[in-house]
Amino acid sequence: MRGGSSEAAALDAADPLKSKRDLFHLPADIIYLDGNSLGPAPKSAFAELEQAARVEWAEGLIRSWNTAGWFVLTDTLGDRLGRVIGAEPGETVVTDTTSINIFKALHAALTLRPDRRAILAERDSFPTDLYIAEGVAASRAGVELRLASDNDALASMIDSDTAVVLVNHVDYRSGALRSMADLTARAHASGAVVVWDLCHSAGIVPIEVNAADADFAVGCTYKYLNGGPGAPAFIFAARRHHDHLAQPLSGWWAHAAPFAMENAYRPASGIRRLLCGTQPILSLRALKAALEVLDDVDLTLIRDKSLALTRLFMELAEPVCREFGARIITPRRDAQRGSQVAITHERAYAVVQALIARGVIGDFRVPDIMRFGFAPLYLRYRDVVEAAAALHHVLKTEAWRDPKFATPAQVT
Amino acid sequence: MRGGSSEAAALDAADPLKSKRDLFHLPADIIYLDGNSLGPAPKSAFAELEQAARVEWAEGLIRSWNTAGWFVLTDTLGDRLGRVIGAEPGETVVTDTTSINIFKALHAALTLRPDRRAILAERDSFPTDLYIAEGVAASRAGVELRLASDNDALASMIDSDTAVVLVNHVDYRSGALRSMADLTARAHASGAVVVWDLCHSAGIVPIEVNAADADFAVGCTYKYLNGGPGAPAFIFAARRHHDHLAQPLSGWWAHAAPFAMENAYRPASGIRRLLCGTQPILSLRALKAALEVLDDVDLTLIRDKSLALTRLFMELAEPVCREFGARIITPRRDAQRGSQVAITHERAYAVVQALIARGVIGDFRVPDIMRFGFAPLYLRYRDVVEAAAALHHVLKTEAWRDPKFATPAQVT
Repeated sequence: MRGGSSEAAALDAADPLKSKRDLFHLPADIIYLDGNSLGPAPKSAFAELEQAARVEWAEGLIRSWNTAGWFVLTDTLGDRLGRVIGAEPGETVVTDTTSINIFKALHAALTLRPDRRAILAERDSFPTDLYIAEGVAASRAGVELRLASDNDALASMIDSDTAVVLVNHVDYRSGALRSMADLTARAHASGAVVVWDLCHSAGIVPIEVNAADADFAVGCTYKYLNGGPGAPAFIFAARRHHDHLAQPLSGWWAHAAPFAMENAYRPASGIRRLLCGTQPILSLRALKAALEVLDDVDLTLIRDKSLALTRLFMELAEPVCREFGARIITPRRDAQRGSQVAITHERAYAVVQALIARGVIGDFRVPDIMRFGFAPLYLRYRDVVEAAAALHHVLKTEAWRDPKFATPAQVT
Repeated sequence: MRGGSSEAAALDAADPLKSKRDLFHLPADIIYLDGNSLGPAPKSAFAELEQAARVEWAEGLIRSWNTAGWFVLTDTLGDRLGRVIGAEPGETVVTDTTSINIFKALHAALTLRPDRRAILAERDSFPTDLYIAEGVAASRAGVELRLASDNDALASMIDSDTAVVLVNHVDYRSGALRSMADLTARAHASGAVVVWDLCHSAGIVPIEVNAADADFAVGCTYKYLNGGPGAPAFIFAARRHHDHLAQPLSGWWAHAAPFAMENAYRPASGIRRLLCGTQPILSLRALKAALEVLDDVDLTLIRDKSLALTRLFMELAEPVCREFGARIITPRRDAQRGSQVAITHERAYAVVQALIARGVIGDFRVPDIMRFGFAPLYLRYRDVVEAAAALHHVLKTEAWRDPKFATPAQVT
């Protein structure tokens, strides 16, 4: 049988990434399909945290800002992460949060296009991107936010008044993947700059920001990069923009000489101009361990397996969905999807809860979407087969009708 | 002899805070006078980090956002910290960095005073405050930053065009402490709002933001609060302002319904309106341990001992300074100083390095300032005596002339 356990076993045996699973701590009896929301802990993160806390902080104290490289972690981790997204060294820093980095990138883009008024984004963007764009527009005279109804509309709305296009590389609900090169070229043809949100693609899709001629990119590090809960985010800016950009979160870490204690701001050269204030070192160190796991991994192996896992899951889930009132909304064509499969169901929240109760952890997004993320570093083909079987069971038995799986007030 | 070791021993024996020292990890053979820059590690922080990483992240995975209270750590830690600064529950959140929180507070203040143009600050402020104020002014039409030459000038410059006064509670160089109630009253009399930077007073000076009628306050948590390297900062807003303020870092954590995934921003009610994006949980957890250490400490005991330690150090250092070309610039009057003693010397950087080589860790600030911070939770009177003796030795022997203590390029 296609997708049966013996076939899965054969695929797992031949998997070139199979040795990576052991680098992660995975709870017993759990199939974890929510690495697109919070990646699991790399085992090496525990030792890294101990080193940072018990040795560098406790013994080194203030000296560790220099001796342990704390002050340049934004840059050293940024370069490490930069390799994963196709950036050159010195074009990426790890700092702050995705929301804050979007704010910086939008302002920076607006300073590059001072004669243009519009920030263009998708109505169905991850919400914080829109909220931040609203914040930028509200505080900057003459700037307005324009929303496109969908992907195609976005491209057609780019015009000579568009300063910057803010766009998600992978849609957080459907899992649809956009062509970075195509949209960037379209924007550049109209003289606009693009800010890419890579939250759902960094670490899972081989990204080539420079090959795609991208201007800015931001993203979080706690999803497929496995950096830990709320690990600091990243921001990339193409080197050609570094000397021309400005952003109003001009804190002392973005100063040309932070310890000269000058009373007027002089922007740092290079990517540090996109820093702001002091960063949370302990959280950065867990991320360091996570990025080290990726250091010797070929992203194309991750992509190949990611596509194989999502393809297998969709093949197995498709007849189940058809029979029980669910629908896969993730693109079937490999080139058009990231690494999650999204399924709609009228009672999606309850279905997700029923699956979690059976040890299959996915998540829910309003109004009716179940998301299942497939991370090749620690997932096996057999996990996919078991997850599909669990979905089949929950839908067929209507286990989701149990009142304990009812929708919480929080998301209504 | 005044300040002799037997007198110090008696003071240490009678110290009501003496049991607290054992709650911290302190390296052997070090007298740590830089807790005003990075506080030492509370021993309980190690277990807290292990719990957060090995149990909640590794085993709990995504579920821990709810089950371990991660999502509300900003609020629960904010309330804990709020007690230390005299805030009511629900008026303080721990989040982001001091620089970013200054940015939010200035914008929020400007929305409260839309008809006024000026941000007023001190020329000698901690620099990031000024850099951020520049960033706010540059991106907000009609707003300008005006700088006062000193404390007295600041108060006299407040006028009907002043929207907001941004001021440091304790000067990061001299250690001078301002009266929060007096300056706030002066600003309010002119209809202006005040943003207090509490970086060098939170956790060491008993602060009463509400009793002083303060509007906004921000500060870091890695100095006297001992939260760990780069631990997230805090922001306080008086409840009377919550429903009226707006700030442009309007990320999803500041939305009224973050998981409703609405495409338009609706501000959260209460203090969460000053949040932005996802916070670094591991770093927050070290801070949690540090705040727990403070939970059962009477701030007046800290203040009494802090003043006694700095007073003793100044008494011992005064004749040494006079003899060897150094000068204490910290106010002698108790009511006018925080918890550090600042001493100028032509070769201050080298003197600090020579002291560090002898196990006495202070720090240097341009152009010629040595800073020595005195934290009552883990410092003893005998440490003060030994530190003063080390200063005497270094100045008398001119140990600082050793070329290995030369000024680094970084700060010139």
